[in-house]
Amino acid sequence: MITNELLNPKNIAVIGGSNDITKPGGKIIKNILDGNYKNLFVVNPKETEVQGIKCHKNTSDLPQIDLAILCIACNHCEAIVKELCENKNTKAIIIVSAGFSEVGEEGKILEQRIVDICNKNNCALIGPNCIGMLTQTYNGVFAGPIPKLEKTGIDFVTSSGATACFILEEAIMHGVPFASVYSVGNGAQISVEDVIEYWDNNYNETSPKVKLIYIESVGNPQKLLKHSRSLIQKGCKIAAVKSGTSDAGSRAASSHTGALAGSDTAVDALFKKAGIIRCEGRFELVAIATILQNKQLKGNNIAIVTHAGGPGVMLTDTLSNNAMNVPHIDGAKADELKAKLYNGSSVANPIDFLATGTAEHLDTILTYIDKYFDNIDGTAVIYGTAGIISPDKVFETTLKHSKEDSKPVYHIIPSPYLTQKEMTDIFAKGHSCFTDEVAFGKALAKVYYAKKIK
Amino acid sequence: MITNELLNPKNIAVIGGSNDITKPGGKIIKNILDGNYKNLFVVNPKETEVQGIKCHKNTSDLPQIDLAILCIACNHCEAIVKELCENKNTKAIIIVSAGFSEVGEEGKILEQRIVDICNKNNCALIGPNCIGMLTQTYNGVFAGPIPKLEKTGIDFVTSSGATACFILEEAIMHGVPFASVYSVGNGAQISVEDVIEYWDNNYNETSPKVKLIYIESVGNPQKLLKHSRSLIQKGCKIAAVKSGTSDAGSRAASSHTGALAGSDTAVDALFKKAGIIRCEGRFELVAIATILQNKQLKGNNIAIVTHAGGPGVMLTDTLSNNAMNVPHIDGAKADELKAKLYNGSSVANPIDFLATGTAEHLDTILTYIDKYFDNIDGTAVIYGTAGIISPDKVFETTLKHSKEDSKPVYHIIPSPYLTQKEMTDIFAKGHSCFTDEVAFGKALAKVYYAKKIK
Repeated sequence: MITNELLNPKNIAVIGGSNDITKPGGKIIKNILDGNYKNLFVVNPKETEVQGIKCHKNTSDLPQIDLAILCIACNHCEAIVKELCENKNTKAIIIVSAGFSEVGEEGKILEQRIVDICNKNNCALIGPNCIGMLTQTYNGVFAGPIPKLEKTGIDFVTSSGATACFILEEAIMHGVPFASVYSVGNGAQISVEDVIEYWDNNYNETSPKVKLIYIESVGNPQKLLKHSRSLIQKGCKIAAVKSGTSDAGSRAASSHTGALAGSDTAVDALFKKAGIIRCEGRFELVAIATILQNKQLKGNNIAIVTHAGGPGVMLTDTLSNNAMNVPHIDGAKADELKAKLYNGSSVANPIDFLATGTAEHLDTILTYIDKYFDNIDGTAVIYGTAGIISPDKVFETTLKHSKEDSKPVYHIIPSPYLTQKEMTDIFAKGHSCFTDEVAFGKALAKVYYAKKIK
Repeated sequence: MITNELLNPKNIAVIGGSNDITKPGGKIIKNILDGNYKNLFVVNPKETEVQGIKCHKNTSDLPQIDLAILCIACNHCEAIVKELCENKNTKAIIIVSAGFSEVGEEGKILEQRIVDICNKNNCALIGPNCIGMLTQTYNGVFAGPIPKLEKTGIDFVTSSGATACFILEEAIMHGVPFASVYSVGNGAQISVEDVIEYWDNNYNETSPKVKLIYIESVGNPQKLLKHSRSLIQKGCKIAAVKSGTSDAGSRAASSHTGALAGSDTAVDALFKKAGIIRCEGRFELVAIATILQNKQLKGNNIAIVTHAGGPGVMLTDTLSNNAMNVPHIDGAKADELKAKLYNGSSVANPIDFLATGTAEHLDTILTYIDKYFDNIDGTAVIYGTAGIISPDKVFETTLKHSKEDSKPVYHIIPSPYLTQKEMTDIFAKGHSCFTDEVAFGKALAKVYYAKKIK
């Protein structure tokens, strides 16, 4: 059961909070404080103050607590959960500690006893054996990095905490914002499927439209199917990695999370029926998510706009080889556009406005595409820097058009090494990007041809 | 004709050198100086000193010059080339300027006149319309970034300068060193095929073993086939992107470099016959290059060693789906290894030594794989950080084993955002890595199953 206290706690207690930020109980407090969450309590019998916050000796010393995060040895968890649920009116608990069902029968019994206490007291339980939760209210994870969190970001649920970290890495490096991240760990009470059910049952027009899933084992395929389908029918897009489907991968998943992974074919069928876009790994998941966060592409005709021929040629090949079109652009308006660019530019598509082309040229090109080129459904701008001119004005121009134009504008930045600063700056203003034109082209085709469910 | 003066010039003159490093003539001087090349001359009628170097008014004022780099308007190039060839005994010229055969008939005629002068005087000509050359002697490019240059690095030839920059970006971010980079531009005298011929004709046991190619049009397929095949028979590995092969891509390539691109099938056949590994784009090219720079993989049995389950599961799936094996590891030595790791670790393959596992654990695991696990041909270590502990000791351990072990050890670092500094540090010591386990798995299978030519 996902409770409001889990998502918007009025106060939070970290049990086992530490001054050592190389420990989960230290890092999670740092992350919560870095996120400017104010109403934080700490329990640690060995400390009087933790990271500037008064530290309580015992959980019993705490006031009523909405959300408690447990960073203590597994064998101490049950008593603390009981104390919190029965005496502190706690309605949400995150247990990051490991040592439960993932290590064997004894851990499984302990885990179940904790679930029983939570269930009896209508308390949400995330974990154990997870990195925690990120919401727009608090950074409740002990592992980083922390992505940009905003209302229109992505909802993400994962059965593997470390994998979540590595997916967040890739997302941050491409400017993708999140609305929430659920690391469910062993999913003792709340599973991946339960989170999807919650998203569906609480969906309204202000809810995030893009949902991402990393899952190694589908425990309840019927629930996943029902609520994914329902969300997609309401206008959501869902992309997922389901790993552990090869024979060897299934053995690997079983060792990792104790999951019994289903066959590859079964997963494919389930995802197709639900309308979920299946991804192979972290990089593809993030590329697909970046496309889904953009405006919807309504046809397969793509314009490529670039200052560097090669990547434009490679993207043209990739799109063509994946049943997308890069149609020829000509006619009076094309001639008019060409006349406004530097001599030697090409507007035939790819539109190559040369290494010396300016942000104003790009602005003109994107305006012509949006207003006059009816045979184009979306635009891929490939623009980085070869280390001579700063591309910041071009980045601003691309962002403006991606927000304002009626057709989607995607940005491939092939120079993440040299333009790291400019990328960070433009991401802060709401931009997102891709870095490999080939990966982008494949992802775009995959999204465009994803089965539309009725 | 590639001359020794092009590769190891005793002195260099930049014609059109500038104090403005946002201009090619300024940036190229900065790059040459940053590379600690000392014997540099500059010609610019408007300056007396350029970036701390005495500036000559005219080319005629120069002493004898081995290599000249021209960063001046196209219509001034012919006279300067004549002066250099006829009066300065110059045996190598790089023309970065554009405005030649790529813009039309007039430029083509001008370009040919320059080639004729060079040919008559046994002078190598790189370009025009290129970013220049990188060798272990000098950084003769006006566009960055500059990769690590060393004798055992990669030889790289490209028909597109901007694409080269973006390939170098990706290579630098994965620690891949280069021995030379040839941006041939229009290839007026020296084409991509000529560079390959030179590599073949001058091959000896100290030559770099890995060659990369970016090409949009194969002007001389017979030359490419002959010398690529010969190089591969001598023990080289060659990977290439040939773009512009779809119908739309061919139009794009034609607009970009005036190339008449061949059909996809013809390119495939040519590459297969030559033994060249064909890549789809920049990211795949660099992943393949990173694998080729490692020891040769002699069988398809891979061990996966990780502290984070999820990426291990995804890599297992990818390898299995691409005809590689992730064999079960068991027996007395496996039990012995397991006893040396933390409780809860798995050695069944993937070998999961847990988030809390140490560099010493990894050292032990890799030693066991190298010495005792005969059913393993190569190892993929997936290890980054979730932001809590610095992974520098693990990186050192992985580097040590990748250098010393008899079997190849590949390293996937899934945390390039959080471990940027540690990655830069370990790259400086000779390490290289991958960042996406799925892309790595596909690239490894592609290299392993690349057609062996006789």
